[in-house]
Amino acid sequence: MNVELINTGSELLLGRVLNTHQQWLCRRLADLGYVVTRQVAVPDAGPNIEQAVREALARADLVITTGGLGPTSDDLTRDLVAQLLGKKLREDASIVKHIEQFFAARNRPMPVSTRVQALVPEGAVVLPNPHGTAPGLAMKVDAEGWQLENCDQTASRSTLNPQPSTHSKWLIMLPGPPRELRPMFSDTVVSLLHRVLPIESEYVCRTLRTVGIGESQVADKIAGPLCDALARGLDLGYCAHMGAVDVRLAAHGSQATQLVRAAESVVREQLNPNIFAADDETLEAVIVQLLTARKKTLALAESCTGGAIAHRLTNVPGASAVLLAGLVTYSNDAKRRFLGVRAETLATHGAVSEVVAREMAEGARRATGADYALSVTGVAGPDGGSEAKPVGTVFLGFASADETVVFKHFNPFDRETFKSVTGTQALEILRLKVMSTG
Amino acid sequence: MNVELINTGSELLLGRVLNTHQQWLCRRLADLGYVVTRQVAVPDAGPNIEQAVREALARADLVITTGGLGPTSDDLTRDLVAQLLGKKLREDASIVKHIEQFFAARNRPMPVSTRVQALVPEGAVVLPNPHGTAPGLAMKVDAEGWQLENCDQTASRSTLNPQPSTHSKWLIMLPGPPRELRPMFSDTVVSLLHRVLPIESEYVCRTLRTVGIGESQVADKIAGPLCDALARGLDLGYCAHMGAVDVRLAAHGSQATQLVRAAESVVREQLNPNIFAADDETLEAVIVQLLTARKKTLALAESCTGGAIAHRLTNVPGASAVLLAGLVTYSNDAKRRFLGVRAETLATHGAVSEVVAREMAEGARRATGADYALSVTGVAGPDGGSEAKPVGTVFLGFASADETVVFKHFNPFDRETFKSVTGTQALEILRLKVMSTG
Repeated sequence: MNVELINTGSELLLGRVLNTHQQWLCRRLADLGYVVTRQVAVPDAGPNIEQAVREALARADLVITTGGLGPTSDDLTRDLVAQLLGKKLREDASIVKHIEQFFAARNRPMPVSTRVQALVPEGAVVLPNPHGTAPGLAMKVDAEGWQLENCDQTASRSTLNPQPSTHSKWLIMLPGPPRELRPMFSDTVVSLLHRVLPIESEYVCRTLRTVGIGESQVADKIAGPLCDALARGLDLGYCAHMGAVDVRLAAHGSQATQLVRAAESVVREQLNPNIFAADDETLEAVIVQLLTARKKTLALAESCTGGAIAHRLTNVPGASAVLLAGLVTYSNDAKRRFLGVRAETLATHGAVSEVVAREMAEGARRATGADYALSVTGVAGPDGGSEAKPVGTVFLGFASADETVVFKHFNPFDRETFKSVTGTQALEILRLKVMSTG
Repeated sequence: MNVELINTGSELLLGRVLNTHQQWLCRRLADLGYVVTRQVAVPDAGPNIEQAVREALARADLVITTGGLGPTSDDLTRDLVAQLLGKKLREDASIVKHIEQFFAARNRPMPVSTRVQALVPEGAVVLPNPHGTAPGLAMKVDAEGWQLENCDQTASRSTLNPQPSTHSKWLIMLPGPPRELRPMFSDTVVSLLHRVLPIESEYVCRTLRTVGIGESQVADKIAGPLCDALARGLDLGYCAHMGAVDVRLAAHGSQATQLVRAAESVVREQLNPNIFAADDETLEAVIVQLLTARKKTLALAESCTGGAIAHRLTNVPGASAVLLAGLVTYSNDAKRRFLGVRAETLATHGAVSEVVAREMAEGARRATGADYALSVTGVAGPDGGSEAKPVGTVFLGFASADETVVFKHFNPFDRETFKSVTGTQALEILRLKVMSTG
C-alpha cells in the first residue's frame, strides 16, 4: 500500500510555521499499518497543488491533503481537486446549517466568505468538522480511469510501484488547523480507511529509546548481534535527537511480530541501562509513571531551564499526582526567598555553582515536603558566560531523604537546545535515582 | 529560481520525530530570497531517495538534502548521489583527521564505522562540520548534461518551469542533526549560495501577527481594502495557529518593497489593536521587550499551564531582566505556601475559581515584589472536569499596583493545545495591560 501526504500552505515553504501535521498524521497512519511513503509540502498556488495531487494519485493508493479548505482567497484545494477529477461543486445544505450554528453558538456574525466551505464535489464523502467550519472531504478515484484519462504522462513516472493498481484509490482532504484535523482523523478517517482500504500484510514497528550514548556507539554495539535478523528482513533505523538516540526495529509479513520481538531482546541485552522507554513514550511520562507507582512526590527548582522541565512533566496527564511544585527561581532573590539559598552562598560561589545547585535541591524538598527534588542552575546564553563558567555550563542537583548529589554538564548549544538537553539530563538523573532506590 | 528541499529519514515518515529542518531551512532560505518551491520527505531507502533527488534536479536550480550522511547502515545519501551523478567516492584525509580529533577531544574511542563519513564524491565542495563528524557536501550539476544523460524521462515532467535551464544547478547535502546543520548553513552555505547562485529579482515578505480575531474575520476586514494591491501583484496569505492568525504580504520584482509597505499600512489600519508583532517575533519576545523598555518586572503563578508560560518567556534571551520568578503551584499546599492563597478560599470556591486566580496573582506580586503578576488556574484535562467546571475551563488573573482583574476562558482542547492557547491568552492580557498603562 502506497500512502502519500500532501501539506499545502505557503507558510510552510516560507518557514513561518512548523509542519506538525506531518508527524502527527504519519505516526497515526503508521500505527494503523498505513506507512507513508512520501510527504510533500507545496505553496498555496494552483499549479503546485495540482501537480502534487496529480503525481501522488499516479503513484499512491491513498493520498491525504491538509489545508486549503478554509474561507480565504488562498484556500484552493477544494476547487482544484474538483476540477482535476472533473467533478462539479454543489452547496451542501447541512454544511451551511452547521456553519450558521457554529457562528451563532459563539455570538459572532457569520462572515459571507465562510459559505464557500459548504461546497462539495459530486460524489464526495463529507467528513464533519465539530471544531470548525470547513468539513473534510473523501473521494474515491478510479485507478484505471485516472491513469488513462488524467494522467497518461504521469503514470509512467511511477518507478517505485510499477504494477498497475486495479483497485480504487482514495483522496482525503483534511482542514489545516490541527485542532480540527486531529479529531476528524480519529473520529471519521480511521473507520473510513478500515472500510475502504483494509490492510492485508502485517506490519510491526518498535522503537527503543536511549539516552547517554552516541549514535555510532549504539550502532557499533548492536549491528553485529542483529546480523541474522537483518538477513531475515528486519528493517533497522536510528534517530538521534537532543541527547537521545532512538533505535527503530520494523518488519513486514507473517513473521513480523516474531522477528521484531527477537531483535528487541538483542538490543535490550546490548543497551539495557541506556534504554528508558519504548515507542512514543517520553522520558517525562516514564517518570510520572515511576513516581505514581511508588507513591513518591517531586519538587523542581529551575533557574536556567526556566520552567522547561515543569512544562514537560505537566504535559503528562496525571502529573498533578506527583509534582507538588515547580519553582522557577530566575532571580537571586527568588532563590533565597522560595528555596532558602543563603545570600552568603550566592555571594561567595555565584548563582551558577555546585553549592547553589545543592542548596536549591535541598531547599525545594524542604519547602514543599516532596520526596525528591531536582535543581538546575547554569548559563543558557547567549550572554552571561565567563571564562570560568562559559555559556553552556550547568549544575544539576538531586535531593532525597538519603542524599544530595550534584552533576556538572557542559551543553554549549543555542538557548532552546540548551534547555531541552539540560532538561533531559535532569530527568534522566531522577529516573536512575528513583529506579536504583527500588 | 526553483529551490527544492528533500528531507530523508524513515523516522519522519513513521512520525517518530518532528521535521524541524523544514521550517528552519525554509525560513532562512526565504529571508535570503531563495523561496523553497517544494519540500519532500522520503524514507531511508535507496529507490525513494534516488527518485526524489532525480525529480528535484529535473525541476529545480537548487536542491538541498538533509540527513543520510552519518555512519550507520541507513545513511545512504552520499553513496546514492555519487552513483546518480556518476562520481567516484574518495577518502578525504583532512576529514579523517577531523573525525579522529573529534573523538580524541571527547576522550571517546573512534568507532570504525565513522570513517565512512570521510568519503567524498569527486569534484564535491566539502562543507566543514565543527559540531559533528559528517561534513556537508555541495556539488555543481551541469543542467544540460543532467537532463540529457540522466533524466530524459524526468525532464519532461517539469511543467512548472518549462524553459530549459542553461546555467548550472547545485545539489547541497547537509547532515541530519540540527545542531550540526544549522551552523553549517549559516557559516558555509549562505556564502556559497551568494557566490554560485546569486539572486536577480528582489523578493520581499512581511508577516503581521494578530491575536483575538478569527481567520475569516481577518480576511473580511482586509480583502476589500487590499484589492488594488492584489491587482498589482501582491501575494496575500493567512495562517491560523493556536489562537493567533498571521497575515503574510509578499511581492516579487522592482516594486516589491513599495507594494508590501503600502499593503502593510492598509492591514495595520484595519487590524491594529489585534496586531502584536511582525515577522518572526513572538508574543513572549514582545513582552520581554516591553517590560525591559519600561523597567518593569513580572512574576508568574501557574497551575494548569504547569510552567508553559515561564518556559515560553525564558526562551527569550534577556528574560532574566524582567522575570523574577515563576511559581508552578500545582498542589493546593503550594498555592497556600508560596502564594498565600487562603485555605478557606480553596475550600469554599475550589482551586479552579475566580477568587483563587485573584489571590494567586496578588500573592505572586506580594511574594516577589514584582510590578506585575499573571496567574492561571483551570482544568487542562483529560480528567478533572465537572459539570460546573468542564475540562477547558480556565481563570486568568492579572495584578498590578493599580488593579487585579480576572478573565474566564473556555479552551476545550487536548492538554498541550490547552496549555499553548491559554498561555497566549495570558500573555496577551499582560501585553494589553502594559501597553495601556503607558
